[in-house]
This record gives sequence, C-alpha cells and structure tokens, in this order.
Amino acid sequence: MNRWGRIFSATIFGESHGRGVGVVIDGCPAGISLKEADFHEDLNRRKAGKKGTTPRREEDSPILLSGVFNDKTTGAPLTIWFENTNVRSKDYSTVLKQPRPGHADFVAQEKYSGFQDYRGGGHFSGRLTLALVAAGVVAKKILPELQIVAEIETLKGSTAIETVIEEAIREKDSVGGIISCKARGILIGWGEPFFDSVEAVISHLVFSIPAVKGIEFGTGFNAATLWGSEHNDLIENVEGKTVTNHSGGVNGGITNGNTLSFKVAVKPTSSIGKVQKTVNLESGETDDLQIKGRHDVCIALRMPVIIEAVTAMALADFKLLRKTQL
Amino acid sequence: MNRWGRIFSATIFGESHGRGVGVVIDGCPAGISLKEADFHEDLNRRKAGKKGTTPRREEDSPILLSGVFNDKTTGAPLTIWFENTNVRSKDYSTVLKQPRPGHADFVAQEKYSGFQDYRGGGHFSGRLTLALVAAGVVAKKILPELQIVAEIETLKGSTAIETVIEEAIREKDSVGGIISCKARGILIGWGEPFFDSVEAVISHLVFSIPAVKGIEFGTGFNAATLWGSEHNDLIENVEGKTVTNHSGGVNGGITNGNTLSFKVAVKPTSSIGKVQKTVNLESGETDDLQIKGRHDVCIALRMPVIIEAVTAMALADFKLLRKTQL
Amino acid sequence: MNRWGRIFSATIFGESHGRGVGVVIDGCPAGISLKEADFHEDLNRRKAGKKGTTPRREEDSPILLSGVFNDKTTGAPLTIWFENTNVRSKDYSTVLKQPRPGHADFVAQEKYSGFQDYRGGGHFSGRLTLALVAAGVVAKKILPELQIVAEIETLKGSTAIETVIEEAIREKDSVGGIISCKARGILIGWGEPFFDSVEAVISHLVFSIPAVKGIEFGTGFNAATLWGSEHNDLIENVEGKTVTNHSGGVNGGITNGNTLSFKVAVKPTSSIGKVQKTVNLESGETDDLQIKGRHDVCIALRMPVIIEAVTAMALADFKLLRKTQL
Amino acid sequence: MNRWGRIFSATIFGESHGRGVGVVIDGCPAGISLKEADFHEDLNRRKAGKKGTTPRREEDSPILLSGVFNDKTTGAPLTIWFENTNVRSKDYSTVLKQPRPGHADFVAQEKYSGFQDYRGGGHFSGRLTLALVAAGVVAKKILPELQIVAEIETLKGSTAIETVIEEAIREKDSVGGIISCKARGILIGWGEPFFDSVEAVISHLVFSIPAVKGIEFGTGFNAATLWGSEHNDLIENVEGKTVTNHSGGVNGGITNGNTLSFKVAVKPTSSIGKVQKTVNLESGETDDLQIKGRHDVCIALRMPVIIEAVTAMALADFKLLRKTQL
Repeated sequence: MNRWGRIFSATIFGESHGRGVGVVIDGCPAGISLKEADFHEDLNRRKAGKKGTTPRREEDSPILLSGVFNDKTTGAPLTIWFENTNVRSKDYSTVLKQPRPGHADFVAQEKYSGFQDYRGGGHFSGRLTLALVAAGVVAKKILPELQIVAEIETLKGSTAIETVIEEAIREKDSVGGIISCKARGILIGWGEPFFDSVEAVISHLVFSIPAVKGIEFGTGFNAATLWGSEHNDLIENVEGKTVTNHSGGVNGGITNGNTLSFKVAVKPTSSIGKVQKTVNLESGETDDLQIKGRHDVCIALRMPVIIEAVTAMALADFKLLRKTQL
Repeated sequence: MNRWGRIFSATIFGESHGRGVGVVIDGCPAGISLKEADFHEDLNRRKAGKKGTTPRREEDSPILLSGVFNDKTTGAPLTIWFENTNVRSKDYSTVLKQPRPGHADFVAQEKYSGFQDYRGGGHFSGRLTLALVAAGVVAKKILPELQIVAEIETLKGSTAIETVIEEAIREKDSVGGIISCKARGILIGWGEPFFDSVEAVISHLVFSIPAVKGIEFGTGFNAATLWGSEHNDLIENVEGKTVTNHSGGVNGGITNGNTLSFKVAVKPTSSIGKVQKTVNLESGETDDLQIKGRHDVCIALRMPVIIEAVTAMALADFKLLRKTQL
Repeated sequence: MNRWGRIFSATIFGESHGRGVGVVIDGCPAGISLKEADFHEDLNRRKAGKKGTTPRREEDSPILLSGVFNDKTTGAPLTIWFENTNVRSKDYSTVLKQPRPGHADFVAQEKYSGFQDYRGGGHFSGRLTLALVAAGVVAKKILPELQIVAEIETLKGSTAIETVIEEAIREKDSVGGIISCKARGILIGWGEPFFDSVEAVISHLVFSIPAVKGIEFGTGFNAATLWGSEHNDLIENVEGKTVTNHSGGVNGGITNGNTLSFKVAVKPTSSIGKVQKTVNLESGETDDLQIKGRHDVCIALRMPVIIEAVTAMALADFKLLRKTQL
Repeated sequence: MNRWGRIFSATIFGESHGRGVGVVIDGCPAGISLKEADFHEDLNRRKAGKKGTTPRREEDSPILLSGVFNDKTTGAPLTIWFENTNVRSKDYSTVLKQPRPGHADFVAQEKYSGFQDYRGGGHFSGRLTLALVAAGVVAKKILPELQIVAEIETLKGSTAIETVIEEAIREKDSVGGIISCKARGILIGWGEPFFDSVEAVISHLVFSIPAVKGIEFGTGFNAATLWGSEHNDLIENVEGKTVTNHSGGVNGGITNGNTLSFKVAVKPTSSIGKVQKTVNLESGETDDLQIKGRHDVCIALRMPVIIEAVTAMALADFKLLRKTQL
C-alpha cells in the first residue's frame, strides 16, 4: 500500500516530525554510479528557501543506508534516508482538537483511530516528497537517454509567478498552479493496454503527491471540445512522428515515440496564515482557527522536480519491464 | 500487467474480433447473489444502438464460467465471458499498412513485433470495456450502501447532447466529452497516503479506459486559480461534513465522508468517416486513409456506465482492504 | 490470491463439476508459436486412464480463448480453457453432511460459509492441475534451452511401481510417493536473495498442487546429517561446475549453473474405497463413510508432468525477470 | 523481489558489513503497542554468543525509524533498523578470487556483474535474518491468540545437541539440523486454494532463510510411505478436531483448526575452519581455501526464533487477509 512499482519499485516511509523519511528502491540494476552528491541538484530544487516556501530549513542530506558499495548500486535494495533535524512539534498539538481545513488531520484521526503521528501531518506531510525526489534521482540514472523537464506554467491562473507569490504573502493566503511536464526520447512501445497504460501509471504516481487534484495528457480536457479530425495526430513517417501531438505521446496507453506531455493541477496550500473556521471536535462547535507552524504559501513552487521524479520512476519501471517482452 | 487490484482484483483478457472478451475477478467474498440477469442493466447502458454509437450489434450475454454456484458467489475466482458473435474482420486488414491516426495500430505493431491481433484493435479495442462493466456489476454488489452515478456533462463543450451528435454524424466526424461521476455514502478512511490514494487508484483505473485523456477531482484544474482561503473546505460538524466540496471528498488521499466527485475528459473517437492522411508503411509516403468498419461517432456516450464500473472496482477494493486495518 | 507470478503470471479459475477450468497467462512475450496440438503431449501424461488413476474420462481439449493469433502468441493475455464434459455431480451430495477425511470439504464449508461449490472438490479439485499443466506448456516454450524432467522415484517407499498400484487397488486403499525433478541448462544468476529465492518460488508453486506435503532441494533433509565439509560442493572450474551437487543447483537462493534438483513428497489420495469414519455434521456423531465417486488410487502417478509444469512456470518467470537487471 | 506479503508485508534491506540491516513493514494496523524493548527477547534468542555460534558480537538494538508514535503503531509503514557496529571487513577480501564453497560468493559475482557488496556475504548474509526476527516480533503482536513454538529436533541426526556442537568445534567443521515448528490456536479457514495455500506461503518464507534446504508439513515425506487409510486424519467432532494430525493442520491448503505443524531441514554452515578446495578465478586452477572471518559452526542453533518469525509473518498476513472475505 505504501509501495509502488513492478520492477523498479519504491517503498516510502517516515514522518514529518519523527526521526526522518526514507525510501527503499528495489529492482534497480547493479552497477549504476550513485553517490550522495548526485542527489544535491534535485534536492535543492525541491528545497524550501525561495520566497513563498516554508521558512523551515532542513539539511536534506541523503544517507545511503543500503544497496550501494564503492559508489555503485549493488543490485540489492537501495535505501535512502533523510534525518529530520529541525523539528518544532509543539506547533502542531492543536490539530487533534481543531482539524485544519484541507488537511488530512480529520481523516487520519478516523482512519488510524487516533494513533497517527499527527505532528506536522505525520506520514501525510509534503516532507515525504523528499523520498520521491530521491527515488527520482535514481530513476533518472536508469534513463540517461531521456530529457524529462517539468516547469510551472501558471500560478493562480497567471504566468506572473513572482507577482502572485508576493500577493499571496501579503494576503496571508496561499495559491496553487499548473505544472507541465515533458519527456523526450522515449522509445515506442512502453506501457500496457490494461491496466497499466502509460497514463494510468503516471497518474497513479502523480496523485500520490500531496496537493495534486488533476492531470491531463496532451490536449487533455480541451480534447473534449475538438472534432476527431482536429484531434487526431496524423502520422507522417515510418518512425511514427506525428504532425501534431494532441495525444501527448501516448496511443492506446502505449508510448508512440513522440514527446510525452502532460499537465498537473496543484491546489493552493491548505495551511494559510489567515484565520479560518473549523469544527472544534471537543465542543462540536465551529471555532476560529489560526494556523501557526511554518508553511509554504505555494507548494506548487516545489513541484516541478517532484513531478519529474515520479515521471522518471514510472518510465524507469516501464523501461525495465519492456525488456522482459523482447 | 493486465491485472489490477489488491483484494478485489480483475484480470482482463480477449480481443475485439477473436473468440470473445472476459474477466477473472479474484478476492470477491462468498455468498453474494449473482446471476446472469444482474448484468443486463449495466450492459445495456454500455451497449451500442443509440444514435452516435457503432452499428455493430452484439448480444453481450455474460457467461459465468466459474465462481458462481446456485446463483451465489463461491469465494473462488469468478470468471465472466462474452463471446464475440458479430465479427467482420475483413474490414481491418489494411491497418497493418496504413495505421489509423489516434489508434493503437502503429504502437501495437512495434510493441508486439507484428504479432498482435490487429483486427478491430484486438486487445486495445473499446470492446474490452465490456469486461470492465461486468466487473463493475460485481463491485457494486459489494457496495450496496453507495450511490455511484456518472453522467455526461458536455459533448464538444456543449450541453446540447443530441445536437452535437447529429452534427458529428452529418460531418462524418467524431466528438468527445466530459463525464462527471459522484459517489455518495462512502465512509471516512478509505485510501492510503502513499502510493494508493483514492485519487491515485481511481485515476489508474480510469486511464485504463480507452479514449480517456484527463481526470480531475473536486474543483480540479480550477483549484489552481483559487486562493487557499477560497478552496479550503471548512469542516462544519464532528462527522466531517464540509460546507463546500472543492476537494471532491478526499483529503490527503483519504475519503473524508463527503461526496466523492471527479470529472473525466474523453477524446473524440479516433475512427472517423472523413478521409484523413496517414503514413503508408510500405511506401513510406503519406496517403489518404478512408476508414471503413463500424464505429462510434462519440465513444463518450457509452462512458458513464464504464466510469461507474471502474469507480466501483476501486471502491470495492478499498472497502475490503479497509477491513484489514480495523 | 489465485494468481501467481511477477512477469510470467498465471490466474487459475474453475471447478471440478462446473463449466470447466482455465488459466489466464499474462506477461508471455509475443511471437511464440502456440497451437492447441502443442498441449496434447503434456495433457496426455497428466490424464487419467492408466491403471491406478480415476475412471473419469475427459477430453481435456484446450481452447485458446485469447492471446493467440495465427498460431502465435500476441503479447496480450493468453487464456486457456477446458470444458468439463463428463460430470456426475450426484456422487458428491453427501460431503456437506459427512466431510471426507483428508479433503478440503470441511475447511471449505467454514471458509466460504457454505457457499462453496462442493461438487467434486470444486475449486480445490485435482482437476485444476489441468490449468497448471497448460501453463507449463507455455512456460516450457519460453525455456527451449532447458531440459526439465520429473519422474516417480518411489511409491509407498518402493520402486516397484506396478506392484504397489495393484496392491492398492486390491486393498481399496491409496498410496503416495516421491517425485524427483531435475532441470538442466539453467544459467547462473536466476533468483533473488529475499524473498524470492529459487527454492522459495518453486516451493510456493509446488505446494499449490493438491496432495503435496514436502519438498527438499539437493540433498535436502539428509543434508542435516552431514558435516559441512561433506555437504559443501567444491567449485572446480571458472564456470562454477561443482564436483558434487548437494545444494541442488542453488546457492544463496540463486542458480549456480549446475543441475537444479529437488524432490517432492505426495501424500496418498484422500479418497479411498475402504469404509472410513468421519463426523456427521448434522448429528455430531462419528459415522461410517463410504466414498463413491471416481478416484485415483495414486495421484502421484499423474504428478511428474504437473511438477514439471510448475517448475517451468517458476523458471520462465525468473528468466524474464533476469532480463530487467542486465 | 525483496518484498513479501499481501497485507502484512515486509521489505528487507541491508548488508552484513555495510551500515546495517532493516525492514519496512507495511499493512500493520494502527494502535498496536510496540517499543524497542519488545524486541529484546526474540533478538536475544537469535543472537550469537552461545557455544557453536559466531564470536562476532553485535548490540542488535532495534531503532524504530518510522511508524511508531507514543509506543503504538500508527498505521503508517513501520521501519526497524539495526546498525552494524562490529565489522571486520578485511577478512572477506579474498572471496572475489576464491569463492567459498556453499556460499553465494560465486553466484553473486555473476548475478550482479561484480558490483555486489561481497563483504561478509553482503545482502546474502545470515545477518539479514535480524530483520526477519524483528518483523516476526511485530507479526506475533497481531496474533496474540496463537502459540508459535519452534525448536531444534536434531543436529546432525542426533538429539544430543551439545555433544554434536562440541565435536563440530573440535573438528573445525560444521553441522546442520532439523527444526520443528508448531502453531496452536489458528482458526479454520486461513489460506487459499491457488496459489497461496498455507504450505505455499510458509514454505516461500522459510526458503528465504539462508541455509534451509527442505520443508515438510505434518507427516511430510513419511506420508509417501503410508496407506491412505493410515494417513487420513479422521474428523471426530463438529469443530473439526482430528484424531491424528498427519496433515499438519492443513487440508486443501487451508487451516483446519488443528495444530499447524512442519519441519525444516537446515544444512551445515558453509563456512568451516577446515581447509577446503575451491577454484581460483584468476588462475582457473583449484586451490586450497582457508576461511578466516568469524562463523557459526551450526547456524541451526539460531534458527528456531527465525522460523517462528517467518511463520508469524505468514499467519499475520493470512489473518488480516481473512478479514476481507467475511
């Protein structure tokens, strides 16, 4: 349930305010060059510190607990661990009484009968995406021939990223955005008709990222407004290159050799500085809620590298799986 | 790869113009009342015959090959089989030379090295959704307390369904649409934070349906244009009822007891009556293509019951899985 | 739960006295030559008809429901179906009242709350091994370089096979035996240290065959009586050939290039002609039980080809899986 | 591949001479009391230090990296980690040139193309069984109603345990043994007919333990020498109690409510003090090999608690899975 993948697989664990977060990657071939420094670039891209992200600072130094020897993967399970060092748990003690709107506080209480680690969202925290980014770094190494690039397309409907962030900070509110992702260089034939189409597997992983609320491939929701004759991508040569790419590089669930392309909707961060209403679970009444803690005003800012990571995970698994059928 | 599910699971098989299509359902509890007549309503809703759907007529009579005894499930694997009776394979012989735009013809040829059953799309055919609908009928029986309702919201951007269909027929073209789905009565606590959030699992299944290109939960892509203070659903009572439902009934990947709500984008049918261009794989040149065969001008018309089916499959699995943790 | 395999996988379904039994094989590469006649040799080896096997005669004609086109596998799920044609269900109506010793009658009643198909053992019947043999035929085609040979070593402790069978028939009793299996030609490196060692995966499948009660690899239980210096197989050349083969071709769960070798213990058939005692579930008293129906006096006689089949399934999966790590 | 389990699942990682070994347990219900001290008893039983076990001393202190909060499981993945503290890696540098007979040195070199962590057996080491014992401690907490007891039955064919050990030490050789395991208190109805019979799942896990070469349930290999009328366990009451227990508590792969009973054959430790022959991979010639390092003369001495652990893992998974079908 906290594991994903058929060949290249990941098991994620940890909590926001516990000892740390980690991931076990199984099915990674032996002999891949991997050292702790290889993680820095992507971890830095995910990191807080830019305007609009939480003031919480973590070192985010990956520790390779297993599966690497002499800076190469060994073929045994690869475990990457991040210690939590900068934890202020007292900020979170009130969520049991006043569940934060938009957060998992309320559902976690019910699902785990009150035994969940509620501090900072516990296992539901965005901090778990550290483990996804780390897994993505490994996955990208299995896919050296690909270029996977995700970027912010809009925030709160606008391309004026900095302006939106400044307004959100000023308003003590939060904003979401749209991330686009493209992967170039994929061979024809990855994916399965049922049930593991390329869209199915990527969307499965993308919706594992907290705050994602939508995904569309190629022309996506707009495809529903076109004629078939407009939407169909005409194949122009024997390699399968198409004139347009409304399908986003996937036909029948299978990669067609054109650029894989999709967009992701990220909701505004649930934690906001403004006072909100929520139920008080002790009194049963609706009370004012003032969230303290440290939060992002726009989680979408950190998203591109996370989206790239899960895309790489999906594609690495497809690539390895493809070998079994040839 | 052609199997889905952790407890309530489905393995799908068959081809459009082979002997038939079927599904094995494993993990279905014993003692559920099930007879062939139980499938008729949903199979009829999926069926061709309405204006805008293919003139191909099939009986679509489910045969229960295993797992049912005295009109009750036995707890052993349940197999449902549909024979193909009305097959005109000669219509499809040209797809090897001229892959149809938007179809899996080209990718299947590459993926399966030319060994695929190319007739009528083979294993990629929309006919496989018969098996999904059948699995959905069984899943709904595991969820008698729920109301799952999917319906067409728009076709080609318009709510004037019949008008759009008539124009598409007239133009020898095709159209897509948006389907909305709601499920009421779900308890709090279904779903897993990583990697099996409610959104992840439902989207995985929804993207297994041919022609789906997008999915959004709750306010979805529009959520990315709102302030957090607008998007957050305020919890108004101790049962978790929220004032609004921007989140679509899911927080942190877990059901929150409010209505599960999502929308699906369906592309226009790839097969159209109009002449199109495509590559001729023998000559390497671009040729005119006139698709014969029998096709839907709007596959979205059949979609609501298929979307309901996969939603029920996902929820049945979550419901059974939930029992293991209590 | 009724599915096995990571790449080459099998989902088994059906009942002894229902419509038939079948198997869906997923993960089989495209382009493998396969027609119904290919199954005859192994199906005949499994078949009843020899002295000591049940007088029930079935055609056992495999019907390829999906996944084969022009006598080649397509890469889509491959379904093989066997209709039951010679069914005498009235023989079995008493098992609900008087559960047969050694059979699954009693546990099935409890497990499935009385909803199981109790006729002829239902889903527990040895008839399900038809599906295993069929899957084995496909698996062997993925392993043309191997020689997998299973044979009866002893029946009731004796190598005088016919004599034992005749005595069992005379006594209206039943006997078991030991089957040995060897597979030659396996490359070094198949299997996983945890949890999918070669022994783990083969034993998992072997214990899925009704009536199996033990398995040992190489010297097996006798290994526990040797000195390490006697048991260790000395490696004599750079290809890994060993002087002895106490380990049965597996070290650390991984194939070592020597002959894979194991033995399986098969219990005597539970159904016997002699009168036995069993509880009467209506009265709560112990009653005489006279089993009618048609039964094998020695199920072990049919076992070699079934053991070969599951061995081939395990090895086909390992072979395909191995490709992902190279 | 390094993961096992459907509901209660374990992913194992780590190496003998790396940073440590660990296990992620997923699917464990929330609210189970768990603290580090709970592991001590079983970890001590596994520990080296008794005569006949390796002189290597480790603290073996479990660190709960995730999934526990206020000494209770949270329902999120539970990670248990053991640091390696007492490592002498220089002892192992020669295995690349002279693979040790009976060890995984040779196959690991081939399987992982020389990238494996060869120190002390790396991921193949018996030290990984620490993780199994830890998982077993958690599994036992899910099964408070059961008594699971494993014990040494014989070493080198003899019940005179100490005498055998002393002789082995004197001879600088090693010995194996037979472990018996019984589990009492299991309800009727755990296990699945195909492919997850109780025997299949337990044997899968048992063969994941290094040095295991055989398993038999109930009367096992001796069953093959009995008449059916001798072997059949007569059911004597409506609760399913049987007069004898030749079947070891399992019929048709399903627990029958009687004591689950099986035996495991453990080979003599591969590492011995005596000089052996092995191939020199550089010269291609056979050379003398003198194993240094620190080793058990009888790994079977540590086995009972490990066998109990994997038995508990299998039964915990069956127990949780059973809830989904009721």
